[in-house]
This record gives sequence, C-alpha cells and structure tokens, in this order.
Amino acid sequence: MADLIAQLRSGLPETAVQTDPDVLESYRYDRAHFCPAGVPAAVVLPQSTEQVQHVLRVASAHRVPVVPQGARSGLSGGANAVDGCIVLSLTKMRRILEINPVDRLCVVEPGVINAELSRAVAEHGLFYPPDPSSWEMCTIGGNIATNSGGLCCVKYGVTAQYVLGLEVVLASGEVLRTGRRTVKGVAGYDLTHLFVGSEGTLGVVTQATLALRPAPKPPLTMAALFPTTRAAGAAVTAIIGSGHVPSLLEIMDNTTIRAVNEVKDLGLPVDAAALLIAQSDADDPAAHIAELARLCRENGADEVVEASNATESHMLLEARRLSLVAFERLGTTLIDDVAVPRSRMVDLMDGVAKIADKHEVMIGVLGHAGDGNMHPTVVFDQHDADAARRAQEAYGEIMELGLRLGGTITGEHGVGILKRPWLLQELSPVSQRVHAAIKRALDPLGILNPGKMLEHA
Amino acid sequence: MADLIAQLRSGLPETAVQTDPDVLESYRYDRAHFCPAGVPAAVVLPQSTEQVQHVLRVASAHRVPVVPQGARSGLSGGANAVDGCIVLSLTKMRRILEINPVDRLCVVEPGVINAELSRAVAEHGLFYPPDPSSWEMCTIGGNIATNSGGLCCVKYGVTAQYVLGLEVVLASGEVLRTGRRTVKGVAGYDLTHLFVGSEGTLGVVTQATLALRPAPKPPLTMAALFPTTRAAGAAVTAIIGSGHVPSLLEIMDNTTIRAVNEVKDLGLPVDAAALLIAQSDADDPAAHIAELARLCRENGADEVVEASNATESHMLLEARRLSLVAFERLGTTLIDDVAVPRSRMVDLMDGVAKIADKHEVMIGVLGHAGDGNMHPTVVFDQHDADAARRAQEAYGEIMELGLRLGGTITGEHGVGILKRPWLLQELSPVSQRVHAAIKRALDPLGILNPGKMLEHA
Ligand SMILES: Cc1cc2nc3c(=O)[nH]c(=O)nc-3n(C[C@H](O)[C@H](O)[C@H](O)COP(=O)(O)OP(=O)(O)OC[C@H]3O[C@@H](n4cnc5c(N)ncnc54)[C@H](O)[C@@H]3O)c2cc1C
Ligand SMILES: Cc1cc2nc3c(=O)[nH]c(=O)nc-3n(C[C@H](O)[C@H](O)[C@H](O)COP(=O)(O)OP(=O)(O)OC[C@H]3O[C@@H](n4cnc5c(N)ncnc54)[C@H](O)[C@@H]3O)c2cc1C
Repeated sequence: MADLIAQLRSGLPETAVQTDPDVLESYRYDRAHFCPAGVPAAVVLPQSTEQVQHVLRVASAHRVPVVPQGARSGLSGGANAVDGCIVLSLTKMRRILEINPVDRLCVVEPGVINAELSRAVAEHGLFYPPDPSSWEMCTIGGNIATNSGGLCCVKYGVTAQYVLGLEVVLASGEVLRTGRRTVKGVAGYDLTHLFVGSEGTLGVVTQATLALRPAPKPPLTMAALFPTTRAAGAAVTAIIGSGHVPSLLEIMDNTTIRAVNEVKDLGLPVDAAALLIAQSDADDPAAHIAELARLCRENGADEVVEASNATESHMLLEARRLSLVAFERLGTTLIDDVAVPRSRMVDLMDGVAKIADKHEVMIGVLGHAGDGNMHPTVVFDQHDADAARRAQEAYGEIMELGLRLGGTITGEHGVGILKRPWLLQELSPVSQRVHAAIKRALDPLGILNPGKMLEHA
Repeated sequence: MADLIAQLRSGLPETAVQTDPDVLESYRYDRAHFCPAGVPAAVVLPQSTEQVQHVLRVASAHRVPVVPQGARSGLSGGANAVDGCIVLSLTKMRRILEINPVDRLCVVEPGVINAELSRAVAEHGLFYPPDPSSWEMCTIGGNIATNSGGLCCVKYGVTAQYVLGLEVVLASGEVLRTGRRTVKGVAGYDLTHLFVGSEGTLGVVTQATLALRPAPKPPLTMAALFPTTRAAGAAVTAIIGSGHVPSLLEIMDNTTIRAVNEVKDLGLPVDAAALLIAQSDADDPAAHIAELARLCRENGADEVVEASNATESHMLLEARRLSLVAFERLGTTLIDDVAVPRSRMVDLMDGVAKIADKHEVMIGVLGHAGDGNMHPTVVFDQHDADAARRAQEAYGEIMELGLRLGGTITGEHGVGILKRPWLLQELSPVSQRVHAAIKRALDPLGILNPGKMLEHA
C-alpha cells in the first residue's frame, strides 16, 4: 500500500493525495442510510484530466478499486467508499470553461455545483433546467452519473436531455471523448448516454458539454387541496390528459401535510388528503394556472389558491420545500424513489398507505406528480431495532409495488448499494447479462466503483 | 445454403421466407448512391418477435449475416444487403399496439410508417414530433436505428428524445427489454439509447415504447430573403441568441433557390443569396413570427413575408419541400448531412461554395438552420465519370469541413457504408476501440449488419 500511495503521489501535487485517517473517515459515506462503507486507502483530489488519468493508471496497475465522488449528496450509497479503495473526489475540478449563448451550450468540469452553474448561465439569459432539490450542494458530475431530475423536469426533462458530450477517463486511464457540440449527431454509438446514469461504474466524467435553454418567464403557482387522493389523481390525469404542460406539478399526501404543519404553520388543513402544487411559465402564466385551477375544482378540490405574483408563488411552494426537513425532524428517513406511469400514481399512493398500515410505520408520500416519480418516505426511530427492520421491509415493498404497477425502482436517485437487490427484480436475466458484458467491455479489471448497481464487490 | 433456408422455413410461415431472385434483387439497396450491395441468400419477413428470434438463432448457428431493413429509405447504404445474408425486413410487423393519452405514450411494432403513427396519435390530440421528410415511407424501426430528425426538431428534438423503451432481439436470438413506460428512470445502464442510432449493428428492434406530446397549436410561417448568406446567418444568430424557439427554422442558398425556380415559379428572386423560413406554434404565433420577421429585417433581409393563415404558411414552406425534387431533376444527388454548431453555419455555407468552385460541381445548400444540421447536396451527371469523381471528392471535403468547424459528419442520416471512411476521422482511436468492444459484447459473432458504421465486412 505504501507503494500505491507513493505512485499516486509521483504524478500529483502534494496536497492532492490525502491519507490522514480523519480525512479518510470523512469521505466514506454519502447521504444514504443503511449502506455499508469501507475505509479508503487514500482520498485523491485531482485538479485536471491528466491527474485523473494518472490515478486510473496507478489503480489499474495495482488493481485497486476507484470510487468517484462528487458532493456525496447521493441517496443510494453510490459514492460510499469500499475497503482499500482510492476515493476520487472531483470537487476540485470546478471550472466553468465556456458559456455560449448562440450555440446554447456550456462546457464545465465535473465538480461545478449545480446551483453555481444555474446562476452563471442565468447571467447570459440562459437556463440549465435540471434542478435536484440538493442543487446548492450537488455537483454536475454527480448529476450526470445519476441522471438527476428535479422539480422542473415535468416540462424540461432530466439531466440526460442536456448532456451533449462528455470527456471520460476510462479504467485504463485513457481519455474518451463522446458526443459533440452540435445539437444533432448520429456518428457512431451514443456512448454519451451510456455514461449518463452509470453511477461511476464505467468511467470518470472529467468534462461535460451541456445544452442550455433560453431563460423561461417567471412562473406563477397554484395550490389545490383534495378530500381524497383519488380526486387529486383525477386532477393530475385531467391536467396531463388534456394536453397541459405545467412547469412543475408536485403532490403531497396527508402524512406529509401533517409533518409540515409541525414545522411551520402554513394554514394547511390537517384533514386534507392531498395537496397538489402546479406552476406555469407559459406566455400567459396567470391564464394557464387559472385553467389548471379550474381542472382541480372540476375534479373535486375543496380549496384552490392561485398566486398572482412571485412572492405568493414562493409561499405556495414552501410546503413542498419543507417536506423533507419536516420528516427529518420526526425521525430517520428512508426515501423511496419509485416512478410509475402517471396513470398509476393513485394506485401507488393508496398501496403505500396499506404498506404503512401493515408494517405500522409512518410513510409520507410526496413527489413529482407530473411525471409519476414519487418519493414515499419512511420515517422511523433508528434506535428502535424493530422499527428499523419494519421500515426497511416497507421500503422494499414500496419498490415491489412500483414494479407491479409497471414502474421502476428508481426515477432519479440511482441504485447504488441500497437498491441492488431490487434491481435484480427489475432487470431480466438477459438484461443483467448485457449489463455485465458492457461493464466488462469498459472496465475489464472491475476497478470502477465495485459493489454498486449490478456489480458485486 | 439449402440447409439455411430449410431451417429458416422450419420456424416461419410459408410466405415469410423469400428466395426468388427478383425478390432478392428488389431488397438489395436503400436510397443511397455509390454504395455497394451484395445479393442476399433470403429475404425474411417476420410477423412477430418470436419469428425474429428464430431468424437470429438460425443465423447465429450458421454464422450468416443479418441485415435489418425498414422501408429502405435510408441515405447511407445502411440497409444494403451483403452477399449471402439474410435480409430481415420488419415491414410486416406494423401494428400500433397502444396509444395512451394520460401516460402520453404509444407502443408500436417497428414496421409502422412514421406518418401513419403521426396520424393515429393526432386522433387522440397527441403529437409524435420526429418528422423526417421521408415520413410517408420510412418506418419507426428505421427512424430509431438512425435516430432520425426532421423539420420540427429545432423545437422538439430528434427520435432519441421520444424513445422510452425498446424490445430488441439480440444476435443470439434472446429478447432484451430496455427502458420503461415511465417518464423517468435510472435503474441500470441506459441501454435504450445505445440501440437508438446503432444502425442495426447491435440488435433488431421489434417493439418500441414512444413518448408523445400534446398536439401543438397550428403554426404560422414567415419567410425572409437575404442579399448575403452572412446576413441570413446573422438573423439566425439573432433569433437563437435572443432566446427564441421557433418550431421550424430552415435555410436555402442561392443554388437551391434557382433549382426550385426551375420546377415551379414561386416568385423567388434568382439573385437572393439565402431564403430563411421560420414557423412558430407558440400561444400567439402571429406575434411570435412578427418578432422573428423584425429580427430578419434588422439583420438585412430584403424582403419578409408573414403568413396569416395555414394556406399561406403552407405556400411559404413549399420552396423548402420542393428542393430535393428540384435537385433530382437536374441530376444525380449526393446529400451531405453535416451538423455544425449553430454559430458556424455561415462558415459552412461559404466553405461549401468554395468547394463547389474548386471541383466545378453544383452544390445546393439547404438545411435545418435552427440546429446547424445542413444538407449540402452535390448535383451531377452520373454518366460523366469525371463529374462523378469530382462530386464524390466534393462530398468528402464537405464532411472534412464540417469536422474542422467543430461539427459531425452526420446529423441524422447515419454512417452506413457511405460515410465509414470519415467516421474514422471523427472518432478517436480510443473511441473506435470502445465501439468495437461494445459491438463484441452484444454481437460476438459479428453477424448483425456487418460492414456498416465502424464494422468492416
Ligand atoms: C436533500 C437532498 C435532496 C435531493 N434531491 C434530489 C432531487 O430532487 N433529484 C435527484 O435526482 N436527486 C436528489 N438528491 C440526490 C443527490 O443529490 C443526487 O443524486 C446528485 O446528483 C448527487 O450528486 P453528488 O455530486 O452529490 O454526487 P455523489 O453523491 O458524490 O455521487 C453520486 C454517484 O455519482 C458518481 N459520481 C460522482 N461524480 C462522478 C464523476 N465525475 N464521474 C463518474 N461518476 C461520478 C458516484 O460514484 C456515485 O455513484 C437529493 C439529495 C439530498 C441530500
Ligand atoms: C426523400 C427522403 C427524405 C429524407 N429525409 C430525412 C429527414 O428529413 N431526416 C432524416 O433523419 N432522414 C431522412 N431521410 C433518410 C431516411 O428516411 C431515414 O434514415 C429513415 O429513418 C430510414 O427509415 P427506413 O424505415 O427507411 O429504414 P431503412 O433505410 O430500411 O434502414 C435504415 C437503417 O436502420 C436499420 N434498421 C431498420 N429497421 C430496423 C430495426 N427494426 N431494427 C434494427 N435496425 C433497423 C437498417 O439496418 C439500416 O441500418 C430521407 C430519405 C429520403 C429518401
């Protein structure tokens, strides 16, 4: 191991290779609960593609695992260290290299924080849509490796849609450039999107060319309270089914409303079964949200509020923003991330309520109603071993329910370590073999993020 | 070979296996010129996924090449037969299995014609955006295998953006299901988009789940004539740079205008350097095209016409629609398909004019100005050997110019046989090795569409 560290140091600046036990400890975990993490041999913080290449070459020579890390805000254990690995933190590679309004693209290093990029492009009248709630901390590299979504993807799509091209360092240390700077292009296989969502198991993203959009109009917001989840679901169906494209469409169930109420009195009635929040950034947002409000009323909403300005809009969204914080005050959280076809959202919500009853655990359901990606969140006392066991069982059953409803176990958080067992339920044996064949093709020694996704450590 | 045919017949209906020489001959070529084609051993027209599996199993056992075919409207030789191959035509698998307005998706077999699908979903108030000009003949399977674009992708994106999931028969005959019915999903690698644009070299698409959009408003059109290509380019830059998203933005150069004039008198002045055509389907399309018209005038347009209804809109687009027909009347055509960053479009147009001068050939430039995907079209007399040689040289130099300008050799038509030599210029040796490794992972015997894209027969 001394040899490994010495070789790493030979091609890197002094401070780039950290082996202090406290430092090693602090890079072990992302934000997921119940995921094992090993102790790394070193934490390396490269500042250039060449330095990343050096790390991968040394790792290949020693057959030592490499775990790429962004901000470690992940919720699936994907960035957790494995014993004896090199943690490769991309956080020091955080330059925005180009913002180009005519070609509507930017070129960035992987460690750029999502919110920093959003602010930088906004100065040019541009918009980088992917907006995970963790946007003030997570990195573009992490967003790409997990194909992150956010509140506005109901209208603007997820990260994958904005990745035009990548620079990737392969397990061998070679640099691969994928994609291009043009909007269109079909020369060769789409390697770009093979890396998007691959959770650091196929290569290390060292640069990304991202498409941008013109800045949208400031949105207006409406909120509607429903007496039943079914009524709320009918409203969503009416909105989407009649061709509306809101720029945000979020839902919270009764459990979530109650939890939020305990944090802050927003005047939400404790007996409402569901709160639906919609935004529009259409040419005439007031007219558009009036139309959405009408559909909510027609489908049984008890109360509908339409914001007439940005401040009111912000207030209406606050309940959604506070939800996770509210749950965290009540206990430890296990956040599911199932996505189902929009038409099955109510079945999912009702099914989750049954799972909560069965296991006697609290599960709040909130999520992206517009695209069927729900975050049923199990809240429990982690010091109560039985509660923790029941919480984990409920967590798994929610994924199985999602699969039965024609959905997927993860809409945006990734598989990591946490959802590995259920991935084997989602993917057929043929698909698993194809995954393994592609992993072997790109990382024959299996050094990249072993034990994550389909890979076993 | 008798053995091969007998085994094919053993798992297929009587008429599904054709060996009549006239039939074999009629399935040899797509629409590309100058691409060699072999003579197939059989043309097979399966009607189900199971039948496709049977074909691939027999082909694997005999190590016989399989060439998937849609409507053979391809422009790169990608669907051309190779000697002794099985031509696998998917044209009999043409059922639309589902259209779902709430989940905004449809499920189709690969042989469905693009225009048929568009009309079928329109009846549900829905919209399948990818609209290649060949839409009345090309198949969804062919569109997926080449990642087709069309006139509206400047606003709505190309085929890839609409493919949620695929059923693919692998070279082994196994069925792989990729992707999902949900809008979002990150469980496992993005195999779906690995198959999109893979030109039949990785697997045979037997079913696709496609995302749909709500039907847009009927568009209005404007057309502007410019005294120089640079002025037209400045107008495009102004339009895109100031955040407009037209639903169509096409350009034609002087050579194209003249060719169209010879087919039909649309009153286009023969000395205009460029014609720019834009459409908007915004909430207030009249106001939007007025704004685009203003930007054209400000950037030096001599004449600007704004349509006030659908009939006028249609007329303004007619020049663009007639362009290819016009060229074909004047000779044989070699249609380039380079895409460059939008900011380099004028450099491309001017560079192409120089290439035309140098080689003394006629090259009309028309294309998708809004996304920088241009179709410089070399027109020549194929019975004049020297002219044909000069045309081919010019054709290649245009791709090299596109690459120098930071672009790609193909924005939407694919590599096929025609552009193979230039693909080796676009992709680095590392990328070529990764391509080969992925091909081997999925098609270890190399039986799928050999000799196309990067593969050598
Ligand atoms: C409060 C909170 C809210 C959240 N909200 C959302 C949300 O709305 N939507 C959403 O999608 N997610 C959300 N997340 C999850 C998380 O923020 C995202 O997954 C994010 O994309 C992770 O980015 P990161 O920089 O923290 O990556 P990390 O957590 O460090 O890593 C994530 C994965 O990416 C890999 N990786 C990181 N960088 C690279 C690289 N350069 N090359 C190759 N692989 C790399 C890692 O190996 C790991 O597998 C939330 C998390 C928290 C804590
Ligand atoms: C007049 C004209 C205008 C055109 N305009 C456009 C345009 O605007 N935009 C554009 O993008 N293209 C255009 N094209 C090119 C062509 O129409 C497209 O590439 C189209 O997608 C091909 O579809 P097809 O069904 O004809 O496929 P084919 O030509 O039969 O095959 C194309 C490729 O796909 C593969 N393939 C076909 N079906 C399958 C399957 N089920 N599984 C796996 N592989 C398969 C074949 O092996 C081949 O490599 C035009 C062509 C013409 C003749």
